[in-house]
Amino acid sequence: MNQCIAVIGGDARYLELIRQLQTLPHTTIILVGFDKIEQSFTGLKQMTLEELPVDELDAVILPITGTNLHGKVETVFSDQEIYLSHDWFKELKPSTRIFTGITNDYLNTETKSANVSLISLLDRDDVAIYNSIPTAEGTIMMAMEHTDYTLHSSRICVTGFGRVGHTVANKFSALGAKVSVSAESIKDLARITEMGLTAVPLAKLHQKAENFDILINTIPAKVIEKSIIQQLPAHGIIIDLASKPGGTDFEYAKKRGIKAILAKSLPGIVAPKTAGKILADVIKQFLMSETSNKSIEKGV
Amino acid sequence: MNQCIAVIGGDARYLELIRQLQTLPHTTIILVGFDKIEQSFTGLKQMTLEELPVDELDAVILPITGTNLHGKVETVFSDQEIYLSHDWFKELKPSTRIFTGITNDYLNTETKSANVSLISLLDRDDVAIYNSIPTAEGTIMMAMEHTDYTLHSSRICVTGFGRVGHTVANKFSALGAKVSVSAESIKDLARITEMGLTAVPLAKLHQKAENFDILINTIPAKVIEKSIIQQLPAHGIIIDLASKPGGTDFEYAKKRGIKAILAKSLPGIVAPKTAGKILADVIKQFLMSETSNKSIEKGV
Repeated sequence: MNQCIAVIGGDARYLELIRQLQTLPHTTIILVGFDKIEQSFTGLKQMTLEELPVDELDAVILPITGTNLHGKVETVFSDQEIYLSHDWFKELKPSTRIFTGITNDYLNTETKSANVSLISLLDRDDVAIYNSIPTAEGTIMMAMEHTDYTLHSSRICVTGFGRVGHTVANKFSALGAKVSVSAESIKDLARITEMGLTAVPLAKLHQKAENFDILINTIPAKVIEKSIIQQLPAHGIIIDLASKPGGTDFEYAKKRGIKAILAKSLPGIVAPKTAGKILADVIKQFLMSETSNKSIEKGV
Repeated sequence: MNQCIAVIGGDARYLELIRQLQTLPHTTIILVGFDKIEQSFTGLKQMTLEELPVDELDAVILPITGTNLHGKVETVFSDQEIYLSHDWFKELKPSTRIFTGITNDYLNTETKSANVSLISLLDRDDVAIYNSIPTAEGTIMMAMEHTDYTLHSSRICVTGFGRVGHTVANKFSALGAKVSVSAESIKDLARITEMGLTAVPLAKLHQKAENFDILINTIPAKVIEKSIIQQLPAHGIIIDLASKPGGTDFEYAKKRGIKAILAKSLPGIVAPKTAGKILADVIKQFLMSETSNKSIEKGV
């Protein structure tokens, strides 16, 4: 049985993603919003949104950013303005799967109203953990660029022990840094200790902050506050990996002269090929499984 | 007893080195060739070579590069042309210690003729091993910059298992790369295997080269030859850490379109502060030990 996939918008990661999708058997791939790419994909169709046979699509792949709240799709490789309207979604057949990186109210509402399934890739545990690898490598690169000492023997504190924090702590520790991890839950603090790292209860972080050269935040809430920043050594730097607007009081950091950087989308910057493959692997699992598989759907 | 040290020339690493030397008790430090540094060192004297009380010096610290074959000293922080002549060396008192990064015929001859001791820091095992840490971190940074995939799961081959190769292999392996190490000696190949890495006899490297994404050379001899380069995959890259002119057939790599980079002095680039401290730690050991300690002298 043939399937038809439309890739609508996307960035450098999507070039690898498209390459990977091409390995699927009996699949037609249509690109929308890729008219400016330099490399040519053989056997693929490029179309405008208007030309797209919407009611024949089995899957639609949106950019990592999904759409904005008006349905606008980000197109790095095109000057076209692409909007996915309420009517556009209504044209889709009910079995269509919509893949996006992150979702929002507009996408949730429109896919629900059109009765099509929406898969938010970055919300999945598997994607988030795989993605944490290039994120951690990008953090290492940033840390190297912004310091004049080795990461080996440097004193690092990672705040948060979720999917990203765990990986970042592991990688810095593997390079010989002295890693502390600050978290709230007793379970996390126990695991951190088991791993041979120093566990710091989040509530006590301000008492320990003077001992850190680099503070790496992964918690998407205002946790790196004045009380912590003012205790950091003068040469201390903050790398904030939490999604916009980060978890740092950037204004206060600036006032105190502490370098604080809000990192964005490191996987797409340091390893677009790997990041594209991570997305492709999950999407391919969906597209190859006719019967909906619960464990795949939930990313467990 | 007071001691007098002259630091003649040097680069960014030497700012930390000087800072560290300032912690020595009863020590006068004189800087020559630092008239353009922006930061000010309190309590230090800046002089020209002519003003220097040569016969009162207990130690002279030359740049990492030592002198050229005419006695010229490299000065990054000065426009002065500084030459250490035969007569200059003759003025030194016999107990003076001359520290340099690397040595050459001129320095060897002049120090011998003046009967002063010459310590070539980078030839020491301890300095070379400590320095291999920033070298490996710099290599990681370069590898990240020149690839669009993660180092995690990438296929790395390190040629040479000396002080640098050993560290580089360890670090890449710690980041989750699949590391092979190519060496000649049976002892090295056994140790590589024991470490859980893949041992590749150097003579057979060309048969395995197609499997590597990144080739990192540490052997200071023409080992990365045509037979190896032509087997690398098209996306393969070569990072050559061996000192100038490296161990790669760069001309052939260029012809085949393989990216090949001769890295230079990574410690001074990625971690000048750590690199300066490494030098300072060894120099301080010498200066604090009145009785010449054999184990220090030999760097064992």
